[in-house]
Amino acid sequence: MLSPEIAPLPQARPFVAAAAQFSSRHDTPRAYLERCLDSFAVWEPKIGAFVNTNIDGARAAADASSRRWRDNKPLSAIDGMPVGIKDIIETADMPTEMGSPLFDGWRSGRDAAAVAALREAGAVILGKTVTTEFAATEPRGTRNPWDLARTPGGSSSGSAAAVAAGLVSAALGTQVMGSIVRPASYCGCVGFKPSVGGINRGGSHDNLSQSCMGILAATLEDAWQVASEIAMRAGGDPGYSGLIGPLHVPPAAKPRRLVFLETAGWQVASSDAKRALQELLACLSSAGVDIVTRQSKLVAAVEEAIADARRLSARINSWESRWPLNTYRSRDAGKLSPAMLARLAQAEAMGLDEYRADLNERTRVRALYNSLATECDSCVTLAAPAAAPLGLGSTGDPVFAVPFSLLGVPAISLPLMHEQGLPLGLQVTGFEGKDVAAVATAGWIEKTIAGRNARE
Amino acid sequence: MLSPEIAPLPQARPFVAAAAQFSSRHDTPRAYLERCLDSFAVWEPKIGAFVNTNIDGARAAADASSRRWRDNKPLSAIDGMPVGIKDIIETADMPTEMGSPLFDGWRSGRDAAAVAALREAGAVILGKTVTTEFAATEPRGTRNPWDLARTPGGSSSGSAAAVAAGLVSAALGTQVMGSIVRPASYCGCVGFKPSVGGINRGGSHDNLSQSCMGILAATLEDAWQVASEIAMRAGGDPGYSGLIGPLHVPPAAKPRRLVFLETAGWQVASSDAKRALQELLACLSSAGVDIVTRQSKLVAAVEEAIADARRLSARINSWESRWPLNTYRSRDAGKLSPAMLARLAQAEAMGLDEYRADLNERTRVRALYNSLATECDSCVTLAAPAAAPLGLGSTGDPVFAVPFSLLGVPAISLPLMHEQGLPLGLQVTGFEGKDVAAVATAGWIEKTIAGRNARE
Repeated sequence: MLSPEIAPLPQARPFVAAAAQFSSRHDTPRAYLERCLDSFAVWEPKIGAFVNTNIDGARAAADASSRRWRDNKPLSAIDGMPVGIKDIIETADMPTEMGSPLFDGWRSGRDAAAVAALREAGAVILGKTVTTEFAATEPRGTRNPWDLARTPGGSSSGSAAAVAAGLVSAALGTQVMGSIVRPASYCGCVGFKPSVGGINRGGSHDNLSQSCMGILAATLEDAWQVASEIAMRAGGDPGYSGLIGPLHVPPAAKPRRLVFLETAGWQVASSDAKRALQELLACLSSAGVDIVTRQSKLVAAVEEAIADARRLSARINSWESRWPLNTYRSRDAGKLSPAMLARLAQAEAMGLDEYRADLNERTRVRALYNSLATECDSCVTLAAPAAAPLGLGSTGDPVFAVPFSLLGVPAISLPLMHEQGLPLGLQVTGFEGKDVAAVATAGWIEKTIAGRNARE
Repeated sequence: MLSPEIAPLPQARPFVAAAAQFSSRHDTPRAYLERCLDSFAVWEPKIGAFVNTNIDGARAAADASSRRWRDNKPLSAIDGMPVGIKDIIETADMPTEMGSPLFDGWRSGRDAAAVAALREAGAVILGKTVTTEFAATEPRGTRNPWDLARTPGGSSSGSAAAVAAGLVSAALGTQVMGSIVRPASYCGCVGFKPSVGGINRGGSHDNLSQSCMGILAATLEDAWQVASEIAMRAGGDPGYSGLIGPLHVPPAAKPRRLVFLETAGWQVASSDAKRALQELLACLSSAGVDIVTRQSKLVAAVEEAIADARRLSARINSWESRWPLNTYRSRDAGKLSPAMLARLAQAEAMGLDEYRADLNERTRVRALYNSLATECDSCVTLAAPAAAPLGLGSTGDPVFAVPFSLLGVPAISLPLMHEQGLPLGLQVTGFEGKDVAAVATAGWIEKTIAGRNARE
């Protein structure tokens, strides 16, 4: 059901593979950027993925990158890659407005840790992508490039839409409930949320204990490369070991056994989405992978433990959001959405003892999930209950993503399915600190399913 | 050797005990504040403890507090308490300049989590206290009220000096190496660094993994009350359980056994300081407390493990400081001190693998120290190698405090000793999450030593 006025289909723009052309001098980062800017000219008026851009700065950075590639001295495999930065993440050259009128035009004057690392790696920062209010629920108008009447998801709304339509090759996102995996699913790009703490959040205004910075990209290869290039330079959050693995995407590896987790999402997923997933699992099964379900006692126990993930996550997030929301409310309550004021009210109704009990419960659920590691290589499920819903009043339902945010484990959304002719993601999840294994599994699944689709 | 021009001796100003006078209407918070302001008028020109003040705001807050006490409706036991805020911690009504010319006049427009909690508890925020550059080493001119020719210590320089001279009753500090315990020792006030993560650092610009917010105060009772009133409202750092314990200071409890840790500091401590500590330990011993030393194999192993604490902490802090120092250097390298540029250079010479190895070593040392918990109630040592050194070019040596920052355990400095006629702190340290036990021990030691001093 694509809207009739969209002539071209959205087309994401892989970078790392394309960069071979820079070495062979058939292409340059500047020319690559100009193609992104062509897409920007076509798409941005329709989808509204950006709040601020620095096109002159991006062209200068792309020119510098072009010189480095010409001299065979690229700074990294992502030297010259056009990227977008979710607008809760600070940039020295652009405001950081956080989807909130309280921060209209606000400039920190510095780059976030991840942004500084991207610049050191030679990436070309095109602009700041639309986020919901403080990366929570209140939408800020971005439209889904596959159907302008639909949400791109949130809270990394602009990042997913911009990547899906090829305005940039990759973009930074953050996830504390479902803010990377869900928009990746809705927009048909790859979403990669590493293990919690995997990428340094310094200068990113999402200071919640299960929040995690991650990447939206055209390909799994690009998503991993961006994440690892940042982690190598900026590390993870202070006190965390940071994303562990090679700079280049880990080779695809066939899993022996996968656990299919229904999560609380299965009850609300569309029948088309369920069917698409079941077909995909059947395909993996026929390729020789064991699919373990809640018939297994351990899996059933995990399903039960994560069934309440959303309520538990919401409580933890609310308590941890008490500040800074309380001081923003003091400044100008009228500039906070009703949803944000409700979150603050929930926090103020909680006590520290309740928060501690919630943390203990989270620890218990994490330990239980981790015991699956002896049972399987990775887990799989839907990335969202259906394709992107109609309307811009909500960014959709994070129900399939929340458990893995709560768990702090790596989660990847792969654009391998469709529902109503629109993109639908397969979610592959792993174990904390074992991002390489999850990505290797995801890579194999992608190849296997792409091979099947090609044969069909 | 007090400087001759200082007529009055510095006198810290207990609050919680004094607040009984508010209930009985013999005193008011406004009158209490005016006495602080009298001290401010006398002392501030000499010691330079503040970078910014909001005296009108403080008087208005004290008046509001006076009305609440009059109506028998104080918001907390610290309602009306005049406090200072270390200038790396954000305040809505004053700039946050971080001891750096890069942040001259910078306003975030919001209160840090701890500041918001203090205001909710009715505290009266008098001003922002001097910090070294970004809470590291570069001094910013505050003088020690016991001798103006000496440093007050750092990085919580102004907080310690202001509390010691009674300009405020308590002040927020932060410690990542020795920034609370050392200035408390030098200035003769109480310093309390809780377990790591114990007090929410939201809006405090010391985002290092072993950094911790804490309190400088006139008494142990006040230090605990301030910490617990904040933690109750703002919690600890996201993902941490926050300071655990009662709102009012835990009752003094006689320890059965204390471990005396020499740390690397013993080799550089003055002979007078060592003698003072040994006399104090003898006094505790004669009061019936077992003092365990490095004669114990386990203690010897801990001593060996913490001997390298400073080098290890410096490496961890450097890596974690890479951001934001890199982006500050991009903005204006000339506004960073040589010490800060050297820290950045150390970070840039490190790789993520080295940082991970350092984290693993820290984890190992923490586990070893924790095994002492079966051996003793608390540990004791000096808080500094000597009284405050002469000169303002350095804030002194954190060697006795660093191990307990590395360990992430509660550490308390009590002004129980003297050296050269100047204050010298006893340091009592506990175990992570067991702040109550450490404070109860500290309370008993204080009473016991104060009793001895009274008899002498």
